Parts: sequence; structure tokens; C-alpha cells
Amino acid sequence: MIKVGIVGVSGYTGRTALELLWNHPGVRVTYLSANDVNGKLSDIWPQFKGHFDFTCKNYDTTKAIKACDLVFLAVPHTVAMKLAPALLKAKKRVIDFSSDYRLVSGATYKKWYGVAHSDLPNMKKAVYGLPELYKANIQKAQLIANPGCYPTAALLSLAPIVSLDGKSITSIIIDAKSGITGAGRKANVALSFPEVNENFKAYKILKHQHSPEIDLYLSKISRKDFGVHFVPHLLPVNRGILETIYVHLSKKVDLKNLHQLYQRFYKTEPFVRLKNLNQQPELKNVVKTNYCDIGLTLSPNGRLLVITSAIDNLVKGAAGQAVQNMNIMCDFPETEGLL
Amino acid sequence: MIKVGIVGVSGYTGRTALELLWNHPGVRVTYLSANDVNGKLSDIWPQFKGHFDFTCKNYDTTKAIKACDLVFLAVPHTVAMKLAPALLKAKKRVIDFSSDYRLVSGATYKKWYGVAHSDLPNMKKAVYGLPELYKANIQKAQLIANPGCYPTAALLSLAPIVSLDGKSITSIIIDAKSGITGAGRKANVALSFPEVNENFKAYKILKHQHSPEIDLYLSKISRKDFGVHFVPHLLPVNRGILETIYVHLSKKVDLKNLHQLYQRFYKTEPFVRLKNLNQQPELKNVVKTNYCDIGLTLSPNGRLLVITSAIDNLVKGAAGQAVQNMNIMCDFPETEGLL
Amino acid sequence: MIKVGIVGVSGYTGRTALELLWNHPGVRVTYLSANDVNGKLSDIWPQFKGHFDFTCKNYDTTKAIKACDLVFLAVPHTVAMKLAPALLKAKKRVIDFSSDYRLVSGATYKKWYGVAHSDLPNMKKAVYGLPELYKANIQKAQLIANPGCYPTAALLSLAPIVSLDGKSITSIIIDAKSGITGAGRKANVALSFPEVNENFKAYKILKHQHSPEIDLYLSKISRKDFGVHFVPHLLPVNRGILETIYVHLSKKVDLKNLHQLYQRFYKTEPFVRLKNLNQQPELKNVVKTNYCDIGLTLSPNGRLLVITSAIDNLVKGAAGQAVQNMNIMCDFPETEGLL
Amino acid sequence: MIKVGIVGVSGYTGRTALELLWNHPGVRVTYLSANDVNGKLSDIWPQFKGHFDFTCKNYDTTKAIKACDLVFLAVPHTVAMKLAPALLKAKKRVIDFSSDYRLVSGATYKKWYGVAHSDLPNMKKAVYGLPELYKANIQKAQLIANPGCYPTAALLSLAPIVSLDGKSITSIIIDAKSGITGAGRKANVALSFPEVNENFKAYKILKHQHSPEIDLYLSKISRKDFGVHFVPHLLPVNRGILETIYVHLSKKVDLKNLHQLYQRFYKTEPFVRLKNLNQQPELKNVVKTNYCDIGLTLSPNGRLLVITSAIDNLVKGAAGQAVQNMNIMCDFPETEGLL
Repeated sequence: MIKVGIVGVSGYTGRTALELLWNHPGVRVTYLSANDVNGKLSDIWPQFKGHFDFTCKNYDTTKAIKACDLVFLAVPHTVAMKLAPALLKAKKRVIDFSSDYRLVSGATYKKWYGVAHSDLPNMKKAVYGLPELYKANIQKAQLIANPGCYPTAALLSLAPIVSLDGKSITSIIIDAKSGITGAGRKANVALSFPEVNENFKAYKILKHQHSPEIDLYLSKISRKDFGVHFVPHLLPVNRGILETIYVHLSKKVDLKNLHQLYQRFYKTEPFVRLKNLNQQPELKNVVKTNYCDIGLTLSPNGRLLVITSAIDNLVKGAAGQAVQNMNIMCDFPETEGLL
Repeated sequence: MIKVGIVGVSGYTGRTALELLWNHPGVRVTYLSANDVNGKLSDIWPQFKGHFDFTCKNYDTTKAIKACDLVFLAVPHTVAMKLAPALLKAKKRVIDFSSDYRLVSGATYKKWYGVAHSDLPNMKKAVYGLPELYKANIQKAQLIANPGCYPTAALLSLAPIVSLDGKSITSIIIDAKSGITGAGRKANVALSFPEVNENFKAYKILKHQHSPEIDLYLSKISRKDFGVHFVPHLLPVNRGILETIYVHLSKKVDLKNLHQLYQRFYKTEPFVRLKNLNQQPELKNVVKTNYCDIGLTLSPNGRLLVITSAIDNLVKGAAGQAVQNMNIMCDFPETEGLL
Repeated sequence: MIKVGIVGVSGYTGRTALELLWNHPGVRVTYLSANDVNGKLSDIWPQFKGHFDFTCKNYDTTKAIKACDLVFLAVPHTVAMKLAPALLKAKKRVIDFSSDYRLVSGATYKKWYGVAHSDLPNMKKAVYGLPELYKANIQKAQLIANPGCYPTAALLSLAPIVSLDGKSITSIIIDAKSGITGAGRKANVALSFPEVNENFKAYKILKHQHSPEIDLYLSKISRKDFGVHFVPHLLPVNRGILETIYVHLSKKVDLKNLHQLYQRFYKTEPFVRLKNLNQQPELKNVVKTNYCDIGLTLSPNGRLLVITSAIDNLVKGAAGQAVQNMNIMCDFPETEGLL
Repeated sequence: MIKVGIVGVSGYTGRTALELLWNHPGVRVTYLSANDVNGKLSDIWPQFKGHFDFTCKNYDTTKAIKACDLVFLAVPHTVAMKLAPALLKAKKRVIDFSSDYRLVSGATYKKWYGVAHSDLPNMKKAVYGLPELYKANIQKAQLIANPGCYPTAALLSLAPIVSLDGKSITSIIIDAKSGITGAGRKANVALSFPEVNENFKAYKILKHQHSPEIDLYLSKISRKDFGVHFVPHLLPVNRGILETIYVHLSKKVDLKNLHQLYQRFYKTEPFVRLKNLNQQPELKNVVKTNYCDIGLTLSPNGRLLVITSAIDNLVKGAAGQAVQNMNIMCDFPETEGLL
């Protein structure tokens, strides 16, 4: 039984982490904090009333250290790098939901997030928490950089083809569509119901901060810099990401071979489901699950691969993946609390 | 050709007023203001780009007076009573969308809106702009208190039965459901998409500020105080109000007679549509129109009348009704610009 | 470990039953059927792929009897009364989701459902599966008539006041709003997305077949016939029912006393949550849970009680309640598999 | 004043055509038909009650010929090619909303639509009704093939770059997202609210029947076969299409030059709005309008152009474009009835 704390439980990913940990047989939730509340958890999330109703206060390092073996940081970027060092120093394990420890270069961080990184030493030590690629490292890690929601779907979609045949890839375009919880829980006219409902748009075209994260881990797989073209869109749904990924290839591939490659690649992975060749992922099949569904289509000339993949941005794209990482770190079965 | 200004064009009702006035053959829009913008109208409402793209600034009394014959005040309550006096003094006609001039008692205003009324003399002179009841007064009015969205649907539903047989009514319950634009255009977590979508709730049960407005005008019809029980709910749609109204009667009525009474009552009214006895109003039939659809059902014992009525809260519940009032005030055909 | 079958797993309530039973520690799902499919469960519900992926065929009485200790009939009314007799004769326990065994009079069934009842003897023996009222009977029952979704919210809202003071109630109005899964899984233009989205309407006003069910069980509590006025509406959300219930009283009540009465009434009930006096139920707090949230408001004159209650129509309104009944029948903890 | 008929007014595009024609000062609607109704138009579309409420029957060629100068065929493909010949023989002008007359090869039609074309002579004579490209031909046409919704947004987005520099384009990918009315008005479980709401998916990946239509007209512009890669998705909104189009270029382009090229290309076109370089189209700015909004973004290396474009699938993607074509054919101002 490990003692786990959640920092930032008033956000959507923090709440989802609590929902998952609550039913996890190997965990006791021993610490909760949220900056915008000082009282009962059910004042923020009335659905928890009578079910699990903690008191919840502003974050307090000393208390967190005393209460926890492992801490989930479900806080915005730039906040995580202020909280993690003390926890790590006190020998706690940390799973950070933010982007603060995902990159490896302070300069890249500064370029995309606009501020200098204040904890470069831990950035170097952090392990990128995509279990399908880095299980062995995750097991021994003290600090996990939990992947971004968009990069999770992108990297799981691309890892097999990139690792097999990165050289023949001439271009990667990721057309991503995300539900609104991806933008966080905020007072913002642009996120208000009448502005989002019955609407759809692209945003940050070729400029989204998840681009360098995707590039970095693709290049780790194949030692090639793909310079992915990433275009996110805002979907009028609460949860879920669907990415349609276009891979131009310099030589013809065979779809059945490719499908078998993907099957083998994810054979032992409990949370990646490859669709049959005539079927496609849909949000509704993955929402509220930790699955990533992947579908493959090939152009008649065999040189454009279209990959579609779907995840729940709050589960496999955040809290579910964090629990999966925790399971691996703590020698629980990888699917514990997630099926 | 009259010159009309809109104050508060960055809100949903102000925008809707502009959409309607723009195509109105008797009107030239000569003044627009909005406090949160200083530049092009299409910076707030990109849909207007290339179509009607004015410059839009903070409100300026002198400019408004110079530019307009008639001013639409699409501003929040407490603001309207600060702007109206100068306009009225300059002999302008004013249609106020807020609740500032709808009541007749300063004490009632204070009780429900929490602040003292600062323009009681004009409150007394204002005409309540529900054309189906007060057409003659509207024609001569200088200041129109444009009815609230909920009261519009409620009063049109109840006026015939109350005027015919107010005495036999023992209780009125109004169960109202409104789309989210009714709450205005605001940065507010509670109005953000993930909080509203897939949700539904009642709010301000028996405490909503539109209750005294409904009570006041029902009592004007029948000299009886009904003390309506008003319960609003928040619907996850952009536009539209549907009210289900329960009228307990001390003596049995006949549904066919009642249906004929309603038909006669609204015979010459272009914007009230009575449904056939086996049919019911739906939001989608009135959204983006100035219609109020009304349906009647009677309990087997003939003593509970269920009225359902539907309007678009931004049109018949606000800007459309304002245009209808303007048409009457200016001797345009009543439906001009509204069909 | 009991062996449970689900008949009708291609519908929304059958699917929800499977989701709940799958994680239930005391149950093995041993039989699944659906008439419109003959193959893998994941052909109907792709979300189950790789997770629990049974073969699923047309219903076969002999196989169901052989495979199961207890059968969930998630089939339409008129179908259940054809399937139940053979199962009961074979000493199986049956929980019927349809309305076939909820009433006690064949004539009332004929009047509201339009066909003669073909299994009156079992109709008399069936126990109405509302655990908060009939726990003792449920424990010993062989056939459970699982309550309708609307009646569940209505009866839980009204039981305390009706049992305490049924005599002083002069009228009950139930204004109910339901998400679209309540209409079942059907090819029907009126249920297609563009007809439902951004729409809202009442239907079957004072004529819905759940009215006699509500009347029957209220009269069992207080030996009085209330003749409830029931008006359902269609909400553009997937799941959830919110009911706003208006109770006219012949004498003044005190809200704090009433709140305490409700608290006492449901003190030991794990799935009824009474809101504090200044708070109201919302769909989002109960969706995907077995909770029924209840809020109380009183008019200033103390003679109109407004009760709001929220449930998930597929959980507490159907499959969750069925599991709760099964738990009671089989001596499992009442909340097993439901929290 | 021309006499216009609409065949297929019970569908979404037929209804939209009626809404537009009704307010068109140069048109009298003299004939309406729909196969699934025989009575009042308001039985299908209650929103028209009291406003324009025709009688509506099964299609009758003789009556249509007698009543109309020009006929809108808002019928499914394969139906239009059965109705058009008689109308054309009787010297009527025809605007066909279906795909029956858009292609130029019977073989291609057979390949993509699965049936042999039965009216090849008229297929050859038909003019493709995209006014921004074919205004002169449209003016003299007797039969207009009104463009598909997806091709309208795609061709308007691509025409300038293809006509300027088709040679340097090495690949075109069209990632398209459409609201549900694009699928028509149908009883179909897959289109029912609970299956579509909170969901998102790709469909007919690289296999959609609009692909050859896009290819054909791009090749007409530049005498090059682009073999566009077209991937449509289903958006949970009623109306609107947003396409994100990726154009790989063999040589670097300059974004400002390109933006000026687009500006010049559409300088005199009233319904194409080019966004400023830092802004993007959104569905909500075009829904219920005949506009096509277009935004341009370029990758840092100047070799991937990302075009986003938005239209209302029922207006610029169908009925609005048909009215625009009619305006051109009949020498009305091109924007008549459309602003």
C-alpha cells in the first residue's frame, strides 16, 4: 500500500487522477491540495460528496512530504518546476503532469514556453513516462515527466513506422482534434459554452508547444529529425483527442505487412488497440478508458500512410498514463486500477 | 429612414439587434458602442467582416445624441438607468433591454436587484414593451422597457387565461428552461463548455429576479396577485427558452373552448403561433425567429392546464422584440425586418 | 460467485449492465444475447474490444437456463413477459428492466401499454425493485420489476414527504427532463443528431406510461391516490434525468424540519444524497454513478415544496439499480460494484 | 420575377433553399415537392407555420414544368439524373444539388457512385456551379451541377495556389470535418444523437466520392493531376465544414506574396473572405451565411502551406451556392437574397 498525494485536484486532470487512485487497490490517497479552495473537496467537485470527501487546502511542501511516498503534480507548467525539487530532495517519487520535465534542453523550453527553466538538473534526470516505449526506465525513475496529451497519441501512432523505416519517411503531418477539457478549467470567454458549442477551429497552427516534444521523442527512436507539422483543433466535446496523421514515404509499403508490424510492436501492450484494416478509431470507444486505439489506411500508390488514433486526453493523455507509470514504478500490475 | 444606435454591441443581445437592424429597410444604424473594444466591430464579431464592419468605441453620450433618433440600450441592469436620462432629455427615443425600467416600484427594484434605483421618474413613465398587450402605449412611448426573456414567454402564455378567468386560477407554476446565451457573454468557469455541456440544473429556485416582473404584469391584466412560482433551469443549448406552465383552476374548463379563446386572443398578432391541440412547441421551430409558439394541454379532470411556450431568448426575448417595438413606435409595419 | 446473464446487451441499459457486472467481484457474466447481432460483442460496442469480448447471439432459453443463476432482462416491454416465465419455472432469479412486471393490474397495463398482459400470475408475485423502499422484499424475491427511470427519481424525491404527511398534499406536479439514451437505441429521424441537438421539447404531456407506476407506489406508501401530473421533456444530453417536482400542501411546513425528515429517511441509504439547503442537484454530479441527488426548496408561504432530483437514467434509473437489487438478493454488500 | 420550384424540400438542403428563396426579391416559389409527405409543409418543418405554409406533394413532372421557370433539384444522387432530362427538354433551367452532373466521365461516375449514369448527354453539357471560377459559363447555362460541400471549400482554398504555381505542388492533403446535416436527414442508428454527440471519427478515408470531383476541377485549373488525399470526419455540430489543407511545395514560397495573390484572386468575389495572416476561420463565423472564410499559414521553411477554410455546408456548400448560381443565371445581383 503506497501513500499518494495529488497537487492540483481542482483541475480536470487532478480530479481524474483522484477518481482513478480512489479505486486502486494498492494506493491510499493521503494528500490533496488545490490553490483555489480551502475546505471540502466536494465544494469544488460535488460529485464526490459522500463518496470520498477530503479536506483540501493550499499546497504545503512540509505536509506533502510527510504524507506521501509518491506525488502527482497536476499543476500548470512553470509551477511544477518550483515544487518538484523539494519533493525529490526528500526522496519522494514524483509524476509531473506538466511539460516542465519533458524536454531535455533549457533553450528549447525557453523558446516554446517563454520562460527560463529553473530546475535543469532534474530536467536531465527525468524519465519520459510513455510506458510503451520506456518501461524499463520508468521502473527505476524517481521523476516522471508524464507525456503531453497530443504527444501521447502522436508517438504511439508513429513509433512503429518510425522505428522500422524512419529513413523512408519524407514528411509527417499531424492533424489533431481535442475536446475542451484539454484547455484546462478556466474563466475565459473563448471557452464559454456559446463560443465553443456548434463551433470548430484550428489554433496555434504549426506553433503549438507540443511540437518539440513530439520531434524530440521521434528523433530518439530513429536518430532522425522529422520536423513534424502539427496542427491542433478545438472540438466541441468534453473529452477525447483524435489525431489524423499523414506520413509520406519515399518508397511503397504494403499495408498488411505494416499492420502486422504494428500488431507485433504492441503485442504485449495492454492499452494500445490496433483496429482491423477496415475499421477506424472513434472518440466514444476510448473516452473514460486508458486505451489508445489506432487505425491504418494506405493510399493506392502505397506511399501515403494515414494513421488515425484516439485517446481520452484526461486518461491516457494525463491521469491514466500517470497511474500506469505509477504501477510500473511500484511493481503493481500495469493495468491495476485502469480496466 | 430613422437613425438608430446600439449601445452594448459586444453582448449577445446587442449583436442580435445589429443583425436585425442591418436588414431593416426603414433603419440606418448610425451609432455603435461597446466598452470592451476600441476598434473594428469584426474584432469582437468576426462573422461581420466584409459585411457590416463599423468602428466601435466606448459609449459617448454626446456622440450618441448627435447620431441617433432612437437608441437601443443593450447593457446590463444598473447601467441603463445611468445612460437613459440624458438621451431622454435630448428627446431621443430609447428601448432599454435591461430590467431597469420594467418595474414600477423603487422598493421592489431594490429588493430584487440589490441597488437603489437612480431614475425613478423615468421608471414611472416607461412603457412595458410587450406589443401583444400594450401596442397602443408603445406607439406613443419615448422610453420602452423591453421585457425580460422569461417574462415574455410567461406573459404571452398566461395572458388569455388570466384575462378571461383570473379568478378561478388557484396557482401558477412556471418551470422555465433557457439556453446559455441568456446568462450573457462572460468569463466564468461555471459557464465554460465542460461545466455546461452534458449538464442540466435548476438555479435561483423561487428567487429569480424575473418573478416580480411576471407578477406585476399578470396583476395588471386581472387585478389579482398570483404570486407565480418561477423556477428557471440552464439548458445546454446556445439559444432558446421553453417554459412549461402549470395552472391550477378551481373549476373545470373545456380545452376546445380554451383553445379558441387563445386563438381569438392572438388572432391579429403576427408573432404568436398557437399549436394545434395534439402538437407541442420545440425550441428548433422558434430559434432565430421572433415567434412565440404556444401549446395547450388539459388534465382529464379539466382542472390543471399545462401551457408550453417557446421563444428565442435573443430575438422575441430581447432584440427581436425591441425591433417589433421600434416598428410600432415608428409606424413601420410591425413585422418589418423580422420575417 | 454467481453466474449472471444479460439478455439484450445491444441496448444502452444492457451495455451499462455489462460494464457494471464486469467489475463486480461476486459475479461471473456467463451469458449474453442480443437479437440484432450474431458474432462478437465488439461489433456492437467497439469500446469493449480487448477488454471483455464475448460472442453474442440471439436469445436461446435453454442456453440461458443452463448458463445462469440470475438473468437481467434488458429488453423492451412486451418482450420481457414472454421470456420471464420459462426462466422462473427453471428456478432462475430474474431482474426485468422493462415495465412488464411493475404494475399490479392487467387492466392498467393494457390501458397504458396497449396490449394485454400475458403473464399475470408472475406480475402479482414480482417485487418492485426500489431498494430504498422495499429492501426486505427484494432480498427474498425471485422476480424483480426494476423501476422505470422517471419513477425512480420521482419516488425517491417524494417518499419522505408522502409517508410523513401524505394527507396535506393537495397536488403533485413532476416536470421531468431526460437525456436521449432514455429513448433507447433506434433508427429514428426524430432521434437523429440534427433534430435533437440545440433543441428541447415536452412530449406525452400528462400521458406518459410512467404516470401509473408513480401513482401506484405513492399510493402504497400513503394509501392515497395522488394522481400525479407528469410531464417529461427531451434534453440534448446523452445521459441523466433531472426532475423538478412541485408539491402543494394544505398546511404550512418548515423547511429545516423537512430537511431533517429527509435526512433521517435516507440516513442508511448509500445511494441517496440530500443536498444542503442552499444547493441543488446537477446532472454532471450523478452521471455514471448510482446516486440520486435530492434538493429541497420551500416557497416563502411554506406551502409549495420544490424538490429537484437527479439520477443517471442508465445507472440508478436502470442497470445500476438492477445491480443494487442483485446485491441485496444475493447477500453482497449493497454498494458492491457500484462505487 | 422568376418562378422557382424546389424538388425535395423535406431534406436539409431543400429546406435551406426555401428559406433563402422566400426572402429573395426576384423570386416567387411556385412549386414544392417531397416524397415522404403529402400535405402541409409545416407537417415536415413546423418552423414554417404561419410564415410560408404551402401544400407539398410527391414530385409530378407535368406540374413542375407548368409551374416553374427554374427548378432546384435537392434530391439524392441517382434521382436527379432521372428528373432533369424532362425539365431540360421543356426548356426549364435546372440547378442540381446532387453529384449526378458534376463529373464528366460516365466511367468515373460508375466507379465512385456504383451505378451507371443514365443521362450522359446532359452530363457533358452541365456547367459546374462554382461561381468564383465559372461565372461566365454559369450565366449561359441551362443545367448547373451545384458543387459538393467538401469540394466547394477545397476548390476555393486551392484555386489561387494551383493556378499560380500548380507545378511546384508535390502533394495535397485535405483533412475535412463536417457537421452532421452533411449526412442528410435519415433514420439511422449511426446518426442518432447518443452515437454522434461527444464523439468524433474519420470515415471513408481516401475513399470518399468527393475526391474525383476535387481532382477534376483542380486539373482543369492547372492541367495537372494532383491526386488529392481526402479524409473526411464527422463533427458533432449541426452545420458547417472546416477543412485543413496541407500543400507540400517543391520550392519555397513567401507568405506575404501568397496572401496578396489570394487577395487579388478573390478581390471582386463577394463571398470569399481572406483572413488576416494571424487569424483563422471558425465555423461560427460562417454558419447561416454564404461566406467561405480562408486562412493561410506557412511552415518556417516555406515549403508547407496550411490552408484552413470554413463554410456552412447547407449554404455555400449547397442551397446558398445554388441561389448564387441562380442570381448569375438570371442577371440578379450576385448577392441578392444572400446577405
